[in-house]
Amino acid sequence: MTDVITVSIDGMGGDNAPDMIIGGIELACKQESSVRYLLFGDEKILQPLLDVNPLAKKACEIRHTKDVVTMDDKPTTALRSGKNSSMRLAINAVKNGEALAVVSAGNTGALMAMATIVLKTLQGINRPAIVTSFPTQKDDCVMLDLGANIECDAENLVQFAVMGEVFARYELDIEQPSIGILNVGVEGLKGNDSVKKAASILQNSNLPVKFFGFVEGDDIGKGTVDVIVTDGFTGNIALKTAEGTAQLITFFLKKFLMGSLISKIGAIIARSALDKFRAHFDPRRYNGAMLVGLNGICVKSHGGTDALGFSHAIQAGVKLVKKDFNEVIKQDLDNLIVKNIEEPLDYNQVSANP
Amino acid sequence: MTDVITVSIDGMGGDNAPDMIIGGIELACKQESSVRYLLFGDEKILQPLLDVNPLAKKACEIRHTKDVVTMDDKPTTALRSGKNSSMRLAINAVKNGEALAVVSAGNTGALMAMATIVLKTLQGINRPAIVTSFPTQKDDCVMLDLGANIECDAENLVQFAVMGEVFARYELDIEQPSIGILNVGVEGLKGNDSVKKAASILQNSNLPVKFFGFVEGDDIGKGTVDVIVTDGFTGNIALKTAEGTAQLITFFLKKFLMGSLISKIGAIIARSALDKFRAHFDPRRYNGAMLVGLNGICVKSHGGTDALGFSHAIQAGVKLVKKDFNEVIKQDLDNLIVKNIEEPLDYNQVSANP
Repeated sequence: MTDVITVSIDGMGGDNAPDMIIGGIELACKQESSVRYLLFGDEKILQPLLDVNPLAKKACEIRHTKDVVTMDDKPTTALRSGKNSSMRLAINAVKNGEALAVVSAGNTGALMAMATIVLKTLQGINRPAIVTSFPTQKDDCVMLDLGANIECDAENLVQFAVMGEVFARYELDIEQPSIGILNVGVEGLKGNDSVKKAASILQNSNLPVKFFGFVEGDDIGKGTVDVIVTDGFTGNIALKTAEGTAQLITFFLKKFLMGSLISKIGAIIARSALDKFRAHFDPRRYNGAMLVGLNGICVKSHGGTDALGFSHAIQAGVKLVKKDFNEVIKQDLDNLIVKNIEEPLDYNQVSANP
Repeated sequence: MTDVITVSIDGMGGDNAPDMIIGGIELACKQESSVRYLLFGDEKILQPLLDVNPLAKKACEIRHTKDVVTMDDKPTTALRSGKNSSMRLAINAVKNGEALAVVSAGNTGALMAMATIVLKTLQGINRPAIVTSFPTQKDDCVMLDLGANIECDAENLVQFAVMGEVFARYELDIEQPSIGILNVGVEGLKGNDSVKKAASILQNSNLPVKFFGFVEGDDIGKGTVDVIVTDGFTGNIALKTAEGTAQLITFFLKKFLMGSLISKIGAIIARSALDKFRAHFDPRRYNGAMLVGLNGICVKSHGGTDALGFSHAIQAGVKLVKKDFNEVIKQDLDNLIVKNIEEPLDYNQVSANP
C-alpha cells in the first residue's frame, strides 16, 4: 500500500508533551514513510522541536492553536471551553475527512467525551470503549473496556463483546476469537447482575460469536480467551494492577540478581535472554489503545509515555487505517448486532442464571 | 507464649483435600508445637492419613462427620443442608469456645455465609471482608475486600478501611497505616458513587486514621499505601490479575533463560538469586486470608493450594490468635467507628466531590 495516510496528532496532550510527541513522530517516520501528519498545537513550541527532528519536520504540517486541554480538566470543562484546543481540532480533522486517524496522549476523559461528541457512535453501539491488546502465555488477547465507562449494564457489555470480537479478528488475525466475561468465578451464579445478564444474552442470542463464558483475573495472563470483556472500572484496575505487578516482579528480579557477585556474573552471561525478556514486557510495545465504537479511528496513548511509546501509538493508528478497520467494523456490527438482536433488547426475556 | 492453642480445621474443604490438609498440619507442627487441632471430617479417610503423619497424628483430634460442602455448592444450599458438614462444625467449634480459630480451604461463598451466620459480625460492621497481605516494592500491604462482597456501598468501604487499618497495625506491625481507596484515577472526580462517598467520609469524619486518598491498580505493587480498600468484585479481580501476571512473567523469564545454552549457563550461575526471587513471589507464602469483621478468627486458605500453602494458612490463624486479634479489633472498632461516626451515618451531609 503506497497511498499516503494522513494522521492528526494532538501535539500538546500528555505528561511529557510535546517533546515525546515530536520524538515519537520522528521514530514513526523511520518505520513508515508513507504517513503525513497534521500536528495541532502551539507553533512557537512545536516548530523548534521539528527543526531538530528532520523526518518529522518533513512529514508534519503544523496547525496552530494556543488552547490546550490539561490533564486535570474535567470532561465537561474540556467540552465547554476546549473547542479550539489541540485535542478537539485534531479530532475534528478526522470528522472533516482531512485525516484518517487521530492520536492523543492527553486527558482520557476529555478525549473520550470530545471524540464521542464529534465522531458519534456507530450504529448499534451506545458507548465507545477503550480496547488494547495484552501479552499472555499463549498469543496476545484483547481486553475492553479499559476505563471509558465506569458503570456498564448488560447491553454495554454485550456490545463490547461484539466490538472486541471484531477487533481481535482484524487486529490479532484470529479467525474466530473466543470471548470471556471477567468475573469473580466461572460458575454461572457468581458476579453482579450486569455480568450475569450479559453472559445469558451471549449464550442465548443468535450472535455468531464464540462465547466461552466467565473468566477470572488470572485467565488474562493465561490466555484462556482471545477477548476479555469487562466494565471500565474493573478493566482499568485490572490493566494497571497487571502493569504494577510486572514492575514489582522485574524490580525484585533485578534486586536479587544484583544481590551477589556470582549472580551478577550469571546475569551478565544471560544478558541477551534477560534483554529479550525485558523487551517482551516493555509497556511501550503495547502503547496505543483504540476508542472503539466511533465513526472514526481514535487512538489514546498512555499519558506518561516517551517517544518510543508514542511512536507505537501512531503505528497502532496507522495499522487500523491500513486494515480499513472502521469500515469493516461497521459492516460486522451490522451483521452481528443489527441482524441478530432486535432492538430494543428485551433483557427481561433472558434468564440471569441459565 | 506456651499456652496450648486449639485450631479447628475443615478437614474436607479444598481441591486436594484432605491430603494437603494433613500434610499442611504436619508441616505446621514442625514450625509450632503448641497448637492442637480439632479435625472435622470423615474419620475413615482422615485416620489413614494421620497414621503416616506422626506429628499431625499427635496434635489432631478427629471429630467425625460424613457431610461435606462441595466447591460447587451455592451458599444457600450449604447453609440449608450443610449443618453437619465438616466446614460448619469447624466454625461451630469457634463459636462454642472449643477452638480459637478455624481454617478452611473450602468453598469461599459457603464459608463466608456460614461464618457470618454462626459467628455474627462485630459491632459497627455490617459485612465481613476477606483480607490478606501482599508483597510490594516497599513493605507488604493489606487489601480488602478480596471477594466476600460483590457490591459494596460507601458505608461498607469505610468499615473495610477501618478493619484494614487495624489489621495492618497488628499484622504488619505498622504504627499508623496509610489507607487508599482503589479507583480508576487519583482525582476526586473519578470513580463510582461508592468510592467517592467513602473517600469523602474518610476525609471529613473524625476517624483518627491516615487516609491517603485514591490509589490506582499499579499502586498495589508500588506500595503507595499500607491498606488498599475496594469492593469484593474489583478486589478479587485485582488479586487474581496480579497472580496471573506473576505467572505470566515467570513463564517468560524461564522461557527466555532456557532459550539458549549460554543463557542456561548464566541461569545456573545465578541460580541462588533466581531461587530467592521465586521464593519471594511464591503464592503459598501469602496463603491464608482472614474473614475480618466476625466474632471469631476464620481463615480462608486458597482452595487449590498444597500442604505447604495450607501450613501457611494455619500459621496465619495461629498468629492472629497469639496477637489476640479479635479482642483488639473489637476495642479498636469501638474507638474508631462507634465513637467517631454517629449511627446512622448521614451520607447526604457529605459532599461526594470534596
